[in-house]
Amino acid sequence: MDKRPEWTAHVRRVTPYVPGEQPNETDMIKLNTNENPYPPSPAVFEACHNLDPAAFSLYPELSAGSLVRSLAAYHGISEREVFVGVGSDDVLSLAFLTFFNADKPILFADITYSFYPVWAEVYRIPFACMALRPDLTIDPADYDRENGGVVIANPNAPTSIGMTVSQIEDVIRANPGVVVIIDEAYVDFGGETVLPLISKYDNLLVVRTYSKSRSLAGMRIGYAMGNENLIQALNDVKESINSYTINTASIRMGIASLGDEQYFQENLQKVMRTRERVKEALREMGFDVKQSQTNFLFVSHHTVPATEIFEKLKQRHIYVRYFSKKRIENYLRITVGTEEQMDRFLEAVREITGTF
Amino acid sequence: MDKRPEWTAHVRRVTPYVPGEQPNETDMIKLNTNENPYPPSPAVFEACHNLDPAAFSLYPELSAGSLVRSLAAYHGISEREVFVGVGSDDVLSLAFLTFFNADKPILFADITYSFYPVWAEVYRIPFACMALRPDLTIDPADYDRENGGVVIANPNAPTSIGMTVSQIEDVIRANPGVVVIIDEAYVDFGGETVLPLISKYDNLLVVRTYSKSRSLAGMRIGYAMGNENLIQALNDVKESINSYTINTASIRMGIASLGDEQYFQENLQKVMRTRERVKEALREMGFDVKQSQTNFLFVSHHTVPATEIFEKLKQRHIYVRYFSKKRIENYLRITVGTEEQMDRFLEAVREITGTF
Repeated sequence: MDKRPEWTAHVRRVTPYVPGEQPNETDMIKLNTNENPYPPSPAVFEACHNLDPAAFSLYPELSAGSLVRSLAAYHGISEREVFVGVGSDDVLSLAFLTFFNADKPILFADITYSFYPVWAEVYRIPFACMALRPDLTIDPADYDRENGGVVIANPNAPTSIGMTVSQIEDVIRANPGVVVIIDEAYVDFGGETVLPLISKYDNLLVVRTYSKSRSLAGMRIGYAMGNENLIQALNDVKESINSYTINTASIRMGIASLGDEQYFQENLQKVMRTRERVKEALREMGFDVKQSQTNFLFVSHHTVPATEIFEKLKQRHIYVRYFSKKRIENYLRITVGTEEQMDRFLEAVREITGTF
Repeated sequence: MDKRPEWTAHVRRVTPYVPGEQPNETDMIKLNTNENPYPPSPAVFEACHNLDPAAFSLYPELSAGSLVRSLAAYHGISEREVFVGVGSDDVLSLAFLTFFNADKPILFADITYSFYPVWAEVYRIPFACMALRPDLTIDPADYDRENGGVVIANPNAPTSIGMTVSQIEDVIRANPGVVVIIDEAYVDFGGETVLPLISKYDNLLVVRTYSKSRSLAGMRIGYAMGNENLIQALNDVKESINSYTINTASIRMGIASLGDEQYFQENLQKVMRTRERVKEALREMGFDVKQSQTNFLFVSHHTVPATEIFEKLKQRHIYVRYFSKKRIENYLRITVGTEEQMDRFLEAVREITGTF
């Protein structure tokens, strides 16, 4: 006999996204959620220390206006071409809800950000997955078929591999009737951005986040850029769900971060230098390491199984990310940490793989 | 000829909620969005000053765990009975998406929080509006009919009028097969809460906010309490949209606010005392003023039209809320401000209505 309450029959059925573990050990090395190992800019510290809690009794600025204007100025576009959300997950899920209402399936890669099928399911959007090539790259030709929309992470996650602007442009050109979302969460770490194309294609939405390159995952800021009609549609749906999403503290720190370009660039350079060093070291230990344009490495060892490395690292309080998913079940995704963290990581991997 | 791009055919059609104006004049008196006129507790100031931006490079705690635990302890319930969101609008919209998936219409009052029909539209939920009685109170018997769910603001907005626990319990008892949401955004200002009923009815969801009674509208914190199966369903849908919504700063300040009960109660008393004084003063000036259990007053003048008072107050940089809606088109909603703000407000109203 079914003893579930009657109301459960009308609960939306979902398969939630499972984020990386958030362990909290004092001596741990956390390389599993692609956070930036360096603090945000000193300008963000200053903005934080200047916060006046008395102002928190009022609602935040409507549509996070001053942050939108700062982002527009930073990227040299109009403020009507910028939309801000609670991290890029908020922006992307709203974009799915806003733009993907056709009967035809939306298209994305079989191996990509695992939130895409989750959003499709929660909003009841049909979708089809395009298989990556054997080398885990995306074939632009796969997206030249009937569909209800396209979403591509570029560079892709967890593969770390980027596409060129011309490859992405092929995809956009093949899909004038639907919205094409390019998720550039990791683009600042050496990828090619298609941002300049938003003035050429009115159906292109470019999504960014403060969580990786700007060291502000904890303050939840993401944004989208595109033709003003796209941004207006996003705003209309957002205003139909929650008038005020970005809080006053995030607005202030988001603006402050944009004002310190030198720190931003130096931070990116540090992460990329460490990434290249670790990549070479891992290759010497017998790893296949994909050419990364992100702040993480996607690696597979020639002899030692990924699960074994994963577990043995965990025993040493080093957390990396493992996806139990066909085709990548022997890979690990490793966030690039500080030089010191990566030294300890490499030492542990050397022990585990027996390469001394 | 239709020149709209083809992709616009698949954009979700919505009629966004229109929040109250957010003017920004130095000498203004803002009584239009029901914010608290007093700052948050000194404990919140301390939590803010103790924020360490270095920690913002990491994602916030999963599911805002420590805030959930603090709320559970504060209300004397289990942490599995608490869900936290980005303001109560986030919580309520998620609850609509999660629980209202039947073919039958959900029910709410014809005059109530104007976001309810907006959420129903964006998520394509059928709905029916139950007319308030002529005195603008809710008739519990209206909710004893076939439906796909019920949502009641108690006390109701913009009427300011509350229902008793026993009236609400009648509604819950009549609806065992669907989820009943009681939106208690204003309950701290003298309303009757149905929170104790969550252990008795597994289909009751009680929603609260930090935006009014806790003076933290700017930090965006709302929450729901209910049977753990309801909370689990909400969490599953939330985790299917955005893993991290409440940022690190909001978590810290949200916890700090709960720790200062004395300030909280004194703040509430101050607002309620001012409310009663202003109510009497307005009645003396010829206003019909509803018996308020909120931090605002819902008023109508016997001779001077609401629109005229609204416009003339605005000329004096005093902002109140007017709803151009049948049956309440001659009412104004006035947030209770500080004693000084209300003195200036009353003086202005005296001039406008000619009562000296």
